[in-house]
Amino acid sequence: MRTKILKKPTIKRLPTYLHILRQLSNEGEEYVSTTKLINELEFEPVLVRKDLATMDLPGKPRLGYKLQDLINAIEEYLGWNETSDAFLVGCGSLGVALMGYDPFKDYGLNIVAGFDNDSSKTGKSIHGKQVYNIAELPQMIKEQNIEVAVLTIPWQYAQDVANDLIKAGIKAIWNFTTVKLKVPEGVVTHNENLASGLALFSVKKKLRDNSDIED
Amino acid sequence: MRTKILKKPTIKRLPTYLHILRQLSNEGEEYVSTTKLINELEFEPVLVRKDLATMDLPGKPRLGYKLQDLINAIEEYLGWNETSDAFLVGCGSLGVALMGYDPFKDYGLNIVAGFDNDSSKTGKSIHGKQVYNIAELPQMIKEQNIEVAVLTIPWQYAQDVANDLIKAGIKAIWNFTTVKLKVPEGVVTHNENLASGLALFSVKKKLRDNSDIED
Repeated sequence: MRTKILKKPTIKRLPTYLHILRQLSNEGEEYVSTTKLINELEFEPVLVRKDLATMDLPGKPRLGYKLQDLINAIEEYLGWNETSDAFLVGCGSLGVALMGYDPFKDYGLNIVAGFDNDSSKTGKSIHGKQVYNIAELPQMIKEQNIEVAVLTIPWQYAQDVANDLIKAGIKAIWNFTTVKLKVPEGVVTHNENLASGLALFSVKKKLRDNSDIED
Repeated sequence: MRTKILKKPTIKRLPTYLHILRQLSNEGEEYVSTTKLINELEFEPVLVRKDLATMDLPGKPRLGYKLQDLINAIEEYLGWNETSDAFLVGCGSLGVALMGYDPFKDYGLNIVAGFDNDSSKTGKSIHGKQVYNIAELPQMIKEQNIEVAVLTIPWQYAQDVANDLIKAGIKAIWNFTTVKLKVPEGVVTHNENLASGLALFSVKKKLRDNSDIED
């Protein structure tokens, strides 16, 4: 079955639903009503109803959705029912931070090792994960069948390193550099930029105005 | 003078320009042409021209913009000509990561201390920054005139803690929880959600399709 393509804001809300649903499940709940979720969240009720409806699950009157079914549906949609092993490239301050951010595992991403070209970092372990020399990347990608990379190197090297990663077999790059990477068909990239978020925060702060800045 | 309100995508690109401009300045350059910036970046040339034009600076034929003027204009627009001291609340894995992320200082944000209610964390220092008990927050906010908080606590406590922060004098909250905070007029919040970014990345990865997901 072809995966339904949901809209961006819906996809961005899915981890929040999942987080709460998992919590309710841990507390021993079996069903969850839309009303309960709405009460637990700050999202608009109409959005929650719409988002949940996209999962195409039957709801029981009064009881709501079967909790585990809803969790499974969201995990499956996001591909988080399986965890992807990933290599992180660039063990600077951001890279180190991400290597130590445990909750990624709940989000389908398992960073298994780091890579850097700085010999003061290689051979050591960060947050229990080994750091290898970047020269070892291509061989290790092939040997371990790694398809996902997290890119946290200085932007000047981003495209070159991405080319090497893709040549070695990487199919998906979570890109924390500011470079918009050029990649061949079949390879995906997603850009994350904390500085951009901080810029939006700063402008709101300066304007002392919380209204959404125009898109 | 009232600050011009730029569009969101322009604001999000400003840190990237700033980063490159600062680098060129460090290399001793005095002027920068739009063409040079375009070559250094992966943004659409037409966007770069438009973004720079919003800064209302005179350009010199052939030479381009005076580098320092452009840097000043962007820093001033973002309010990054002054660094804001901030308290980080919630020293879990994300909080610790952000406390150790040095480049924030280049982006106008200086996290000066952390707060937690876990006594195994308080009294210690993380990345050279002291961790205090959350009970000390109100007084320390007042004493140190802190107006900015980074919120990295579990979402269940987010609204309550935000209320306390605001009561003590916080004017701007960079919110890493999934809760959409209710705040009074004059207080700003900006939500950052790494899980949302990872969700978008995961869906692209699963679809093996790099085309933008519909907004």
